[in-house]
Amino acid sequence: MNNIIKNSSRLFIGEDIPTEYLSDVYVKDVKRPYAVALPTKKSEVVEIVKYANEHNKVIIARGASTGVAGSQIPIIGGEIIIDFSKMTKIINFDHETLTLTVEPGVLLQDIQKAVEGFGYFYPPDPGSKHSTIGGNIATNAGGMRAVKYGTTRDYVKAVEVVLPNGEVTILGSLNVKHSSGYDLTDLFVGSEGTLGLITEVKLKVIPMPQYSKSLILAFNDVVEATDIVLDILKNGYEPTALEMFEKDTIEYSEKLLNLKFQSQVGHAYILLTIDGNDEEAINNKFKKLEEQYKDQVLEIVFLNDEEEEIAWKLRDHILYALMELSVFEMLDEVVPINKFGEMIRYTKSLQEKHGIKVFNFGHAGDGNVHTILMKENYSDEEWAVKRKALLNDLYDEVYRLGGLASAEHGIGVMKKEYFLKLTDPIKVNLMKVIKNAIDPKNLFNPHKIF
Amino acid sequence: MNNIIKNSSRLFIGEDIPTEYLSDVYVKDVKRPYAVALPTKKSEVVEIVKYANEHNKVIIARGASTGVAGSQIPIIGGEIIIDFSKMTKIINFDHETLTLTVEPGVLLQDIQKAVEGFGYFYPPDPGSKHSTIGGNIATNAGGMRAVKYGTTRDYVKAVEVVLPNGEVTILGSLNVKHSSGYDLTDLFVGSEGTLGLITEVKLKVIPMPQYSKSLILAFNDVVEATDIVLDILKNGYEPTALEMFEKDTIEYSEKLLNLKFQSQVGHAYILLTIDGNDEEAINNKFKKLEEQYKDQVLEIVFLNDEEEEIAWKLRDHILYALMELSVFEMLDEVVPINKFGEMIRYTKSLQEKHGIKVFNFGHAGDGNVHTILMKENYSDEEWAVKRKALLNDLYDEVYRLGGLASAEHGIGVMKKEYFLKLTDPIKVNLMKVIKNAIDPKNLFNPHKIF
Repeated sequence: MNNIIKNSSRLFIGEDIPTEYLSDVYVKDVKRPYAVALPTKKSEVVEIVKYANEHNKVIIARGASTGVAGSQIPIIGGEIIIDFSKMTKIINFDHETLTLTVEPGVLLQDIQKAVEGFGYFYPPDPGSKHSTIGGNIATNAGGMRAVKYGTTRDYVKAVEVVLPNGEVTILGSLNVKHSSGYDLTDLFVGSEGTLGLITEVKLKVIPMPQYSKSLILAFNDVVEATDIVLDILKNGYEPTALEMFEKDTIEYSEKLLNLKFQSQVGHAYILLTIDGNDEEAINNKFKKLEEQYKDQVLEIVFLNDEEEEIAWKLRDHILYALMELSVFEMLDEVVPINKFGEMIRYTKSLQEKHGIKVFNFGHAGDGNVHTILMKENYSDEEWAVKRKALLNDLYDEVYRLGGLASAEHGIGVMKKEYFLKLTDPIKVNLMKVIKNAIDPKNLFNPHKIF
Repeated sequence: MNNIIKNSSRLFIGEDIPTEYLSDVYVKDVKRPYAVALPTKKSEVVEIVKYANEHNKVIIARGASTGVAGSQIPIIGGEIIIDFSKMTKIINFDHETLTLTVEPGVLLQDIQKAVEGFGYFYPPDPGSKHSTIGGNIATNAGGMRAVKYGTTRDYVKAVEVVLPNGEVTILGSLNVKHSSGYDLTDLFVGSEGTLGLITEVKLKVIPMPQYSKSLILAFNDVVEATDIVLDILKNGYEPTALEMFEKDTIEYSEKLLNLKFQSQVGHAYILLTIDGNDEEAINNKFKKLEEQYKDQVLEIVFLNDEEEEIAWKLRDHILYALMELSVFEMLDEVVPINKFGEMIRYTKSLQEKHGIKVFNFGHAGDGNVHTILMKENYSDEEWAVKRKALLNDLYDEVYRLGGLASAEHGIGVMKKEYFLKLTDPIKVNLMKVIKNAIDPKNLFNPHKIF
């Protein structure tokens, strides 16, 4: 390893490994890795993989470590962590094919800024703006705008990957259509570092919509709010974002940011944005929406540009605020959009049954619920038992409704037990045989997902 | 086999196999299969696969046999062809999740009609409306509207598949987002029957756009026409379809249909459609487009509804007309959109070099060229030599420009040689190890693609 990375600030072995690599908010049983390497270029990544292969060392890819499923965490001991945070070059922007080429360690916020600087728009908008694009691809990160624009997957044109045997290839291309062999790009997107290490990414960007407007709908409770979501989606409003959250959650960010959300009535809200290039068309949709729903809501608040920014800042900070101000676990289950209301209702019913306070916020437009389980004053031991009992119930219901354990955070280690219990074993086995075919020595992030 | 399908009109063995299964327009060396089975339900498909497994028989899936890459053709001898043309049930339309569930043998035109009957829209629009949805999925079929709406892949929510070992599983779900293990759906879409047999499909549909308008731009030649394509795409017109064709090609459909195309000046045309729910917004785009390009074209013809239908009918029939009136080979290479003009120019340069008449029509909006090689009066022997020399040059250039051998028809056997020569062998090997992992006995459509 010392022959590959000679700079001692980029390679840590054994006892020298900084403590940040040795603990995790969610995974309690973090093991001590063999080494942490911070490569600056592809050739170093390749050499590390070849070294790992020769010495049968497990490799774990790590970006900004904002992952909440534990995929980037050592759970065996003796792993090599490849931390991509030094590979942060924005390599090229191609105006003709609207393609941004970057290294995997570039932060989402830097990608968004760079693209906007060129006059374009990168739609995926996960909550963690300081996550890396490599991490976003590993989990197929979603975010606020998925209801209209899709997830990270939809913006990955090509990835250069280092395979478990040290070979390098480029999956995907700049072509808009393809029917030339298997779609390997989509196989690697969302594979949580188990199939390959990304060393370069080509991202699709789109023209920036000229106008964007938001409004708030206020409701007595979260059940009333969810009842209206499906109706909005089916009526051609084409929302860019359709977020739903309980008053209990937004209060955390109000406290953290010292700002007031623009509606204070009721106990649940929908924050809805519509964008486009025709301002009048957006205004017409808002008028129609007001007409259609004014009798079913406590109030409708139309936001001006400044208010819109504040409302979205508050929404964006729910997670940070919870992290600052409480101890909790955040889930990211997803159900078909017509089951969203039923799912929300069920999560609330678990409060009493299990004695755990349950909040919800989420991307109502795409059926993705972020259920928050508040630890409050439970001891670690009590919490472990109660949490597990609740999760058993909750995931059973998710799958009964046709949903999945994870919409956008990945399975990692945190959801593996439930994923394995509730997924068709034939499908899990297909994943395993593919993993084994590409990584026969099981060196890339083993024991994650399945 | 006789125990599985007892109805003699749905099972043909040996000498009883109808001649339609024993020849192909494109693949000259068709071999005699062992049997042709026409199942009507999943359980029969499963039983046939189990039988094939036990007797080491190769299985080839066949839809309407409109494929032009030879994927559905027996090339070894002794295969079992599963013809899905009896599995044509439209099972269900779910208004809440906007999902149409069908069997794999349903024709594209029947899907479009059914969906429109429910008031919705299924955007993929390959030229062959009498192809089956199973075949569309096997090749990730594209068509006219891919520039705005994407390809078949983007509308497949879930597929029920029979695996090579006879197991059945459902890939995908009704969830809008997912980060719960590998994306197997996208792996199977476009895999040309080499990984699994589709027995049921859940398709995404969208609200029907209320308005659609088309215009024609006329040019001196195809090079002038292509020069303007990239500019249209970059200027926010969001075309639903952006087709380019030479006068030579549309003349074939004029002759077949006894109709006149609405522009007769110049030698190349762009047929452009814009759709949406705001009629004025479409009109404004057309006005802007006229203003921007009027000095660069011979004429602009705005089409009323009736004319629009005729123009598209003529465009749709280019291929049928060529088939009726000439002998030719159609390619479906794709290049990044900024290389489209260069590619078209290159195909024209091959005419003189190889003495083969070359026409082009294609989906200019997504870089997909349908290059037509006219056999004219060449003997089969002369043609074989000339064709091969031209294709060698042509595909070399396609890959040099960053393109791919197939945009929407698949590799099959027709393009396999060029695909294998020009694709990174590491990537081909990845495909092979995945194929081998899922189909270790190599029973599903072997020797196709790679």
